[in-house]
Amino acid sequence: MCGIFGIYNNPKATELTTLGLFAEQHRGQESCGIAVNDGITLRMHKKMGLVKEVFTPDVLKDFRGNIAIGHVRYPTRGLSTIYNSQPHIVETLSGPSYALTSNGDLVNYNSTRKVLESKGVYFASNNDGELILKYIVYQVEKKGKSIIDSIRKFMKYVNGADSSILATKSELYIFRDPYAFRPICYGELRDGSYVVASETCALDILYPKWYKELKAGQIARINADGIEVIDHISDQYDRKINEKHCIFEHIYFSRPDSIIYGENVHLVRQKLGRLLAEKDANLPVDVVVPVPDSSNFIALGYSKERKLPFEFGLIRNHYVGRTFIEPEQTIRDESVFQKFNVLPGFFQKKKIILIDDSIVRGTTIRKIIKMIRNAGVAEIHVRIGSPPVKFSCYYGIDTPTREELTANTKKIEEIRQFIGADSLTYLDISQLSRAVKSPDKYCYACFDGKYPVL
Amino acid sequence: MCGIFGIYNNPKATELTTLGLFAEQHRGQESCGIAVNDGITLRMHKKMGLVKEVFTPDVLKDFRGNIAIGHVRYPTRGLSTIYNSQPHIVETLSGPSYALTSNGDLVNYNSTRKVLESKGVYFASNNDGELILKYIVYQVEKKGKSIIDSIRKFMKYVNGADSSILATKSELYIFRDPYAFRPICYGELRDGSYVVASETCALDILYPKWYKELKAGQIARINADGIEVIDHISDQYDRKINEKHCIFEHIYFSRPDSIIYGENVHLVRQKLGRLLAEKDANLPVDVVVPVPDSSNFIALGYSKERKLPFEFGLIRNHYVGRTFIEPEQTIRDESVFQKFNVLPGFFQKKKIILIDDSIVRGTTIRKIIKMIRNAGVAEIHVRIGSPPVKFSCYYGIDTPTREELTANTKKIEEIRQFIGADSLTYLDISQLSRAVKSPDKYCYACFDGKYPVL
Amino acid sequence: MCGIFGIYNNPKATELTTLGLFAEQHRGQESCGIAVNDGITLRMHKKMGLVKEVFTPDVLKDFRGNIAIGHVRYPTRGLSTIYNSQPHIVETLSGPSYALTSNGDLVNYNSTRKVLESKGVYFASNNDGELILKYIVYQVEKKGKSIIDSIRKFMKYVNGADSSILATKSELYIFRDPYAFRPICYGELRDGSYVVASETCALDILYPKWYKELKAGQIARINADGIEVIDHISDQYDRKINEKHCIFEHIYFSRPDSIIYGENVHLVRQKLGRLLAEKDANLPVDVVVPVPDSSNFIALGYSKERKLPFEFGLIRNHYVGRTFIEPEQTIRDESVFQKFNVLPGFFQKKKIILIDDSIVRGTTIRKIIKMIRNAGVAEIHVRIGSPPVKFSCYYGIDTPTREELTANTKKIEEIRQFIGADSLTYLDISQLSRAVKSPDKYCYACFDGKYPVL
Amino acid sequence: MCGIFGIYNNPKATELTTLGLFAEQHRGQESCGIAVNDGITLRMHKKMGLVKEVFTPDVLKDFRGNIAIGHVRYPTRGLSTIYNSQPHIVETLSGPSYALTSNGDLVNYNSTRKVLESKGVYFASNNDGELILKYIVYQVEKKGKSIIDSIRKFMKYVNGADSSILATKSELYIFRDPYAFRPICYGELRDGSYVVASETCALDILYPKWYKELKAGQIARINADGIEVIDHISDQYDRKINEKHCIFEHIYFSRPDSIIYGENVHLVRQKLGRLLAEKDANLPVDVVVPVPDSSNFIALGYSKERKLPFEFGLIRNHYVGRTFIEPEQTIRDESVFQKFNVLPGFFQKKKIILIDDSIVRGTTIRKIIKMIRNAGVAEIHVRIGSPPVKFSCYYGIDTPTREELTANTKKIEEIRQFIGADSLTYLDISQLSRAVKSPDKYCYACFDGKYPVL
Repeated sequence: MCGIFGIYNNPKATELTTLGLFAEQHRGQESCGIAVNDGITLRMHKKMGLVKEVFTPDVLKDFRGNIAIGHVRYPTRGLSTIYNSQPHIVETLSGPSYALTSNGDLVNYNSTRKVLESKGVYFASNNDGELILKYIVYQVEKKGKSIIDSIRKFMKYVNGADSSILATKSELYIFRDPYAFRPICYGELRDGSYVVASETCALDILYPKWYKELKAGQIARINADGIEVIDHISDQYDRKINEKHCIFEHIYFSRPDSIIYGENVHLVRQKLGRLLAEKDANLPVDVVVPVPDSSNFIALGYSKERKLPFEFGLIRNHYVGRTFIEPEQTIRDESVFQKFNVLPGFFQKKKIILIDDSIVRGTTIRKIIKMIRNAGVAEIHVRIGSPPVKFSCYYGIDTPTREELTANTKKIEEIRQFIGADSLTYLDISQLSRAVKSPDKYCYACFDGKYPVL
Repeated sequence: MCGIFGIYNNPKATELTTLGLFAEQHRGQESCGIAVNDGITLRMHKKMGLVKEVFTPDVLKDFRGNIAIGHVRYPTRGLSTIYNSQPHIVETLSGPSYALTSNGDLVNYNSTRKVLESKGVYFASNNDGELILKYIVYQVEKKGKSIIDSIRKFMKYVNGADSSILATKSELYIFRDPYAFRPICYGELRDGSYVVASETCALDILYPKWYKELKAGQIARINADGIEVIDHISDQYDRKINEKHCIFEHIYFSRPDSIIYGENVHLVRQKLGRLLAEKDANLPVDVVVPVPDSSNFIALGYSKERKLPFEFGLIRNHYVGRTFIEPEQTIRDESVFQKFNVLPGFFQKKKIILIDDSIVRGTTIRKIIKMIRNAGVAEIHVRIGSPPVKFSCYYGIDTPTREELTANTKKIEEIRQFIGADSLTYLDISQLSRAVKSPDKYCYACFDGKYPVL
Repeated sequence: MCGIFGIYNNPKATELTTLGLFAEQHRGQESCGIAVNDGITLRMHKKMGLVKEVFTPDVLKDFRGNIAIGHVRYPTRGLSTIYNSQPHIVETLSGPSYALTSNGDLVNYNSTRKVLESKGVYFASNNDGELILKYIVYQVEKKGKSIIDSIRKFMKYVNGADSSILATKSELYIFRDPYAFRPICYGELRDGSYVVASETCALDILYPKWYKELKAGQIARINADGIEVIDHISDQYDRKINEKHCIFEHIYFSRPDSIIYGENVHLVRQKLGRLLAEKDANLPVDVVVPVPDSSNFIALGYSKERKLPFEFGLIRNHYVGRTFIEPEQTIRDESVFQKFNVLPGFFQKKKIILIDDSIVRGTTIRKIIKMIRNAGVAEIHVRIGSPPVKFSCYYGIDTPTREELTANTKKIEEIRQFIGADSLTYLDISQLSRAVKSPDKYCYACFDGKYPVL
Repeated sequence: MCGIFGIYNNPKATELTTLGLFAEQHRGQESCGIAVNDGITLRMHKKMGLVKEVFTPDVLKDFRGNIAIGHVRYPTRGLSTIYNSQPHIVETLSGPSYALTSNGDLVNYNSTRKVLESKGVYFASNNDGELILKYIVYQVEKKGKSIIDSIRKFMKYVNGADSSILATKSELYIFRDPYAFRPICYGELRDGSYVVASETCALDILYPKWYKELKAGQIARINADGIEVIDHISDQYDRKINEKHCIFEHIYFSRPDSIIYGENVHLVRQKLGRLLAEKDANLPVDVVVPVPDSSNFIALGYSKERKLPFEFGLIRNHYVGRTFIEPEQTIRDESVFQKFNVLPGFFQKKKIILIDDSIVRGTTIRKIIKMIRNAGVAEIHVRIGSPPVKFSCYYGIDTPTREELTANTKKIEEIRQFIGADSLTYLDISQLSRAVKSPDKYCYACFDGKYPVL
């Protein structure tokens, strides 16, 4: 999971890219980077750290241009080093230069890279973005294809999830795989410049004139003539359009104020809550409590459906960060206390519905439940806003190995015992599919192992 | 507003102080510091930055001891430099050493400092904590008083808000002014060590055996014999106990999961919301929306009272920090977009109650309202969970000058027009006093200008 | 001008490379880097800064392996960014990995890079090292040649100065262009490991069993079987051996304790001084004073030849660094005072010989002379240990453009007036050639414009 | 050993102080600091590190004023922390502010501090400078004395070495103890501003109109009326003038281009060399070689006296710094190779005089001799430009404990064997006294244990 952003023809290109990345910070906190075209040359700045730490006013002051693309990174393939962060660039002595940033994960990365390496195209990272970039540049520079045709060829032969932005000295190209796994949207600002982002929430902050989603397999070219969107061309060798949006964007990843795959994330989440409530019609409880903040809307949906009070029983410390003291250094097994605390007195003798969006390893929810039990709760009924995660994702999400996925090795009753709940219910896949308008256009591989492409 | 923390007799003193300060990070993000006694000497580390940035595992590794005190700082008196951050220490060549950290603001700081300076006690900062420390050390070392008597003398002659922790090589002292303006609590961990904090939420994370509040004018001494609490002694010259708790701790400052002045903050906040609803009985609206996160509980109380739906219409970006790009560098007047965004579609044609905890300058709520209007709202009725702030605070809160307080210069109707609401209501002071159990024991000076001490 | 270092089969490979680079720090202070093979993977660390700042004990602690190569960089081609610093690496998915570091400057860099780019080999820097590396890797991986043959092909088609070290997972290759422009030497340590360096002074500190120079056009392969040196093979298309050592290594660049091109640098420098004295036989002066430290040996030679006292009249501040306060910020035109000061009283009424190694722009010597005049000198006779520098270097030295070279635009008499000396003499090229044993084997292009290769 | 600098009435006060400290960097590399008066307030910046690292153009840009004092620190009393670095400041609420920087070491520091502490004057460091400052401020502010009288009282009761600069909001005071242990000089720039420094070399770089030494016990006041120098007043209780200059300033500490105690350091050093040669009249050797750079002038003097060739046989790496790799981490016992290297071929079969300024522990010279023996030397005759160091210094030099001083525990013959020389001669104290014009005015305590004050 990563966030991308691009802007065309705006004198404040780097500042606005910084703001856009900042709005997408939830999609990746490891590193961030921006490449900018100042009309003469491409310049790049990328560094480990949060957007506000890396793109300080001091850095932005001397880092200007009209076309910029940026990236926030959550590690997927490759080690956590600056060499694996994005954007990637290729500058040629003969003139053209290219910068690319992408979100996704290619399934035939290794074989594609080996082919390119056998032709002399060498790599400085293990990052998908560098592969996509060099594949396309190779087609353009070596084979003499147009950029559009090169992107088409990439789409034909290279499989997997990718939503990408490619900047040249005078143009911006955006494209999305025929499965449309990861979100990407574009729009126009009131000053006539164009913007691209992973999520609409990153465009909202720029107060755009309009924005829309890039569709599966589409390529858009933005240049001095405006924007031209080219629909996917299927030929006999080509990938057909086969929309398989990542359903987890709705469950967890995207910000609730974004519109993803044409649906309001916050409404889908409330729907998940309402669907969770279906089987609980007669369960006598007092309140509905979310694990904040990711489950807030699911819990709100559940509470509305059952007309039960929605309450904040847990408080989250928003200053928690990645690099803080590890639990083993302090009080063993109590690290979750750093992040969550119970409202004093709140849980005493209450029967509660505790809502979480998903269970991966189960260790966090287990500690939260222990904390709530210590607070004197009467009953804890855990409701999960998604089906059991049993399979790894190959399309851009850094799930643990199958062995570490608790739902892969344990039955639901075993999980209930492990986490210490009085009852535990997940959404069925069939319920989940009712939360969205076009259920066939989603990928459920992490739940059912039916991978659209491998 | 600052946060303090102390621990006595724990081999993990610095780690636990780090955790405690981390839980109090909302009370101050400018700088933080810890002084620790390793049995031989007092050591100190303080730096500008967040707790997780300053007290990294690398720093903690070589920074050990059994008695530690710490501080997170929100600037009040004095410039924003490391010299003004806490704790402060005095080490004497003859042996004794002292470290102190405090939360509060002394009203006769200048005259007290001048008296001390005239005696030869010089200062390296403009910080209250250094004054409190040197006042007490002067009494002990120069006048030969006991520490308890020195603290008493301090309380007798030096006026204002202060909740303090003083560490020597073998003891920990905690004390609180007779007005009990700022919170302070103490408790015992399961391993027999003692802890002190500004807020109970910082003790909760250590899973304590028990904790309680230090009362007005009390002094507690913690040493190898355990804890001894000494009640306030009033003599003819002495300050009488006159509890005047800061009501703003309930309205805004404290974490909702803390117990402050014997009351659950989250319940007081819900009460504020219920009281706000009193005058709106017949106002036809669709939903109640908080300005997140500080107003969540007030909004929840309002929604319960009026049986209206509680909804998150605004999403807050939790990655916003102090040093981020200033609005003038980007899009003028739109900086609030960095921090808040509207749920798409949510506000369309809705009549809403928008809840905020307070209005200081009015500029932020004005921008939020503009943003909501752009989202197509039908009516915005702003409800503020406190009375108009008309007077500056001299007891530890960094309010702007009276001239900058919008409620000081404008009538409520003028403020309504300025912020662009369809209606605007504040709580009356009389209503506010009904939200707490002992209304006479609170300070309302920022609302009514009746300062308990000057 | 840069410094390179390599080591094969030593468990302290990174520490010893650090020491080696540290001894070569005078060859480049801008950035430094080390690539190390830990048996499984190649790891790299490079950063702007001095060796002691970049390779701290903390960094070295976790940066280990048996084969390492390193580089200190003085900027030549390309901007001053970390992307242009060395070493460069190529890792392939199919297994092999390569790291390279070089000293030199390729004359057909642009055309060679364009050819490689046209084949799909893309570049992340403008640095010669990356070109050499990718040229060779392309031959090995794409064309199936051996590494030795690939290096040979590189030597055949790519022209200019390069002394390089190439590391694979199990071997170290070193090679030098047929002109042997830049120095490179190799040896064996007492523990059986092999070392390579630009200068012998970097081997001396490791107390080696033996060391020798790599000859023009030679390639050496170091692996588990020991070291094998392959002499240059000239065929009809190939470059002939045509030794053209950079004479400036003797005049200025190398450390005086190094042996370069088979000659002791400190002896060559003294010879330069003796030759300078030839024409001055009857010039009545009191003392010989060097511009320290680079001209110390030249001045010593002059003083011996003429049996005149050698004196330190100027003291140099060794704490001066690249990033210090620029002159325009302080006292205009007096910046040289930061670096040099006169011995008080020393120059009073003396007739002096002032020795410098070369004049590039003439601005520094001019300021020094002004300083000495202010100290009451009677006469200043400037003697330069090299001929006038009239032409730019294309083989690894960052000389200014021809227009900025004072000797290119001014006659010697004009230069004398500009710098304010009473007399000014340079060495003739014919004299210079007498300072070394094999004068035909040197490049004098910066003096006479006769470039061995373009 | 530390360096101090001050400037009065110059709009570039901080830049020029930076340049001055930079010229005194050899006197202390641990930390540096500047306090500056901008007409309204005193500001201070101090940090661990070299002058060029701490006072970057970025820092200086916003750090301006007309009166500044600065300090470079070599640790003497107190730990290596920023709290112990100088300058120290006292700002009073009633208005006056004071900043002080000093070079020296007080012998009754502890008793004086205890007296002050007993009066309520508390300390944040263990640094002499803070004591001097607070002693004086206490006299001025508490006792109502003038600054001049306060300095006099300080001189009367507080013993030891101190050369100090005190800045107020409108004046600069400089003073020196009646023993005149440490150097201090002052002068006037061409723009009318006044400057003060430890060494004249720091004034030279500012191209002053005139400068002179501050004499023993003198106090100078610099203000809008110009400079007034007040001679020492001895009364019955007062310290008499008893000049005891530190002879080690001539032997080692000061820069050779400084004038210290009225003598040219470089001439004194040459005299040391000439005196050393006295007893060697008939010793047959080939060359004289200094341990660079500190012994260069001593060796030059020796070579002139005996008409022997002066040669650089050892090359010093000037990039060596304090924090570099420690020997135990690399090749044991060879760490000196990082710092020194022999000229190849130079020592072969030569009989040499090796000159060093002093021997403290003897470990460095021992390694150098081993290195020279490995280079094939015939004979090594070590000549030390000072008597054996047998006693610790209490006046500002950080000598090891007596036990670690090799000359305290070993006879000269034992030292010769330990270091591996063929012969070893020190200067006698009687010889040393002949190197200076007024031998009675020097302290020789580190050689003879006759401490002028304890």
